[in-house]
Amino acid sequence: MERDQKTIEFIAVGSELLTPHFQETNSLFISEKLQELGWTLAFKTVVSDRLEDLKQVLKIAWRRSWLILVCGGLGPTDDDRTRQAVAEMLGARLVFRRDILDKIRLRFESRGLKMPSSNRRQAYVIEGAEVLGNPHGTAPGLWLEKKSRIMVLLPGPPSELKPMFENLVLPRLKQFGEVRVLRSVIRITGAGESMVEDLIRPVYKSLPSDLQLITLASPGDVQIRLEMPVRSGRPGADEKAFNRVKARIVRLLGNLVYSDEGKSLEQVIGEKLRAAGWTLACAESCSGGLLANRITNIPGSSDYFLEGIVTYSNRSKNLELGVPEELIAVKGAVSEEVALAMAEGLRKKSGADFALSTTGIAGPGGGSQAKPVGLVYVGLAFPGGSTVTRNLFRGSREQIKFQATQKALDMLRLKLIEMSKEAGPE
Amino acid sequence: MERDQKTIEFIAVGSELLTPHFQETNSLFISEKLQELGWTLAFKTVVSDRLEDLKQVLKIAWRRSWLILVCGGLGPTDDDRTRQAVAEMLGARLVFRRDILDKIRLRFESRGLKMPSSNRRQAYVIEGAEVLGNPHGTAPGLWLEKKSRIMVLLPGPPSELKPMFENLVLPRLKQFGEVRVLRSVIRITGAGESMVEDLIRPVYKSLPSDLQLITLASPGDVQIRLEMPVRSGRPGADEKAFNRVKARIVRLLGNLVYSDEGKSLEQVIGEKLRAAGWTLACAESCSGGLLANRITNIPGSSDYFLEGIVTYSNRSKNLELGVPEELIAVKGAVSEEVALAMAEGLRKKSGADFALSTTGIAGPGGGSQAKPVGLVYVGLAFPGGSTVTRNLFRGSREQIKFQATQKALDMLRLKLIEMSKEAGPE
Repeated sequence: MERDQKTIEFIAVGSELLTPHFQETNSLFISEKLQELGWTLAFKTVVSDRLEDLKQVLKIAWRRSWLILVCGGLGPTDDDRTRQAVAEMLGARLVFRRDILDKIRLRFESRGLKMPSSNRRQAYVIEGAEVLGNPHGTAPGLWLEKKSRIMVLLPGPPSELKPMFENLVLPRLKQFGEVRVLRSVIRITGAGESMVEDLIRPVYKSLPSDLQLITLASPGDVQIRLEMPVRSGRPGADEKAFNRVKARIVRLLGNLVYSDEGKSLEQVIGEKLRAAGWTLACAESCSGGLLANRITNIPGSSDYFLEGIVTYSNRSKNLELGVPEELIAVKGAVSEEVALAMAEGLRKKSGADFALSTTGIAGPGGGSQAKPVGLVYVGLAFPGGSTVTRNLFRGSREQIKFQATQKALDMLRLKLIEMSKEAGPE
Repeated sequence: MERDQKTIEFIAVGSELLTPHFQETNSLFISEKLQELGWTLAFKTVVSDRLEDLKQVLKIAWRRSWLILVCGGLGPTDDDRTRQAVAEMLGARLVFRRDILDKIRLRFESRGLKMPSSNRRQAYVIEGAEVLGNPHGTAPGLWLEKKSRIMVLLPGPPSELKPMFENLVLPRLKQFGEVRVLRSVIRITGAGESMVEDLIRPVYKSLPSDLQLITLASPGDVQIRLEMPVRSGRPGADEKAFNRVKARIVRLLGNLVYSDEGKSLEQVIGEKLRAAGWTLACAESCSGGLLANRITNIPGSSDYFLEGIVTYSNRSKNLELGVPEELIAVKGAVSEEVALAMAEGLRKKSGADFALSTTGIAGPGGGSQAKPVGLVYVGLAFPGGSTVTRNLFRGSREQIKFQATQKALDMLRLKLIEMSKEAGPE
């Protein structure tokens, strides 16, 4: 277990990663792969191409960390200074390697190209480092072990870094021992973060000390992530403790939980519809196609999703869904009655078992005192009836659209559960 | 210009930001806002909630940087240790402030809630710091100036950080001097990154040395970002040089450019439709609602967007759009003929001036030798005719859906340009 005490850190090199236009994502991939070993990062740093800044960051890392994963700055241009910075920081020489140069040259020649002279830089290796081959690019990686510390230099482009890390780095790291980690994601809708935390408060009292519980919230969606390393000697004991906590959270939250396996709501309703052999259609006004888009993001959704209609104009609500013009005139397009008529109309027309509808004010304009931005009616027509909810969502236009679709999918989920109960145990 | 020499760094606090599940995004917002002053970040660090690690990172920053922006760790829980770490690092006391506690309590009471005792923590302030009010949450920010260094503590949730940074931090930072930066985003579709770079190669030869040109590509979309600080003494000289480069790029790329103002394609076609008083409808098969969703993400789109139909089943293609069953049987649902019939059918039915259609294989399943995954036909019916394109897209299901909608919107854009030319100069 000694390794657990050892600090792991990640460094991304590149001035572009300090601008608003580029998001550093290699660390997400790397932390995901490290999780397989039960390891976590302690620090992430992004630094520019400036040699002095880069050397400083490397020096700090070398002092405090056992394993340092550096990515970027191995390319052929003047801005690529990682090799030089590491060599200077460690007081090591850069050694020219003809075999590497030959490989790079061959890579160009195989495509009928002449190697630019700048690529010569990439054939220099820090003294004492092992070379990690790069079949997807010209920059080889480097593995340095010195004074019980490890520094790994990796290329920046994800298409080169990912295979190199998986095939050459991870297997070497595994030799230092891995910890199995239990993991679960519980997904919830229909309650905000604070309500969810209130409901699950009882589990906090008896949480295994190793178990990490993280709550993640965005408008219309809450996730609870559980993680626990398997450490105890008794086989199955950790799993049992972990599953007990998970089951308790799921019980406390009841029907608010739409998945305890990290699935999306569109995936969950897709599975339920498919299992029961039922079909779905949707009539959208304010969600503007997002509901159909989410449903059809699931591969194979054409098996149960028949059609979607985005009726943005009143005329199309009438023509496509048979919503009476008088109803729209009297109650307004954004009303309980119109939401119901949309769902019922589409269910009848499409022949689907279920039809969902949304009508509301997504904003930012178009709101009034009586019908403010964020007011959304969601309708559901099902075999034997129909139902509607009135919702007041907050946020941007896109957040309001998302919450409308989340509510619609969740109404369908709850109805499907109710109907499967009525049908009796399978 | 002295400030330009001064180092600015960003620190995000939170163990969750070191896992694969959370992407740190506040730094993107902050670096974008700093750009308005002509400032750039030199370092970004992500550190866990561990007090010792946090103190270490703060100490390093305090030594090397002039301005340190710290975000996260100001909440009410035991894991929120930023206040404590900064106080210990600086050797300053934490002072209890009744006025802050009263404000927090009021926030809860105004919603009929009792303040949890844990929120008391948030009423402690580092001695000598100025308090930055937080109208969107309970955690106040702190502004610390000491020994010609500035440290700003900001709440982690973007909905709290963003208004606080814009309204309270940015105006203070402006006093230290700003550099005006010229900026443009040219957006392109219909060509890949390497083709775009080949086309604009001539401009590289005569690029002003201060002008930064960045190309950003994703499937179906390329962006060229231009940035240049205004430094020269002669008024208007920098602007002239900048605009000359921009105009040359736009000329070299011609009709591939859909916006030279950074607008999205749905925004561009929305503006064109609105200006001409034309209306649009769309019939989607493989894009599954994404096209309607993108169009309706634009506020006010209900003025020109009449309706969208997602015809996932063959039956609905026949019933909703009048595509003959025999045509589907003979040619297949994924065919040029069906794409055309879908667009023409919807245009007629909806009364819209333009109708777009998509039919294809989004994958990952459902492909064949003759009709592989990624094959998408996009149709457009317009006043006086109709047209269709055959496309072979690569990538994931969602990437294929996106590229299909990008192609559809671009076909419409080009047709609108063509028609406005035929109509003669305005």
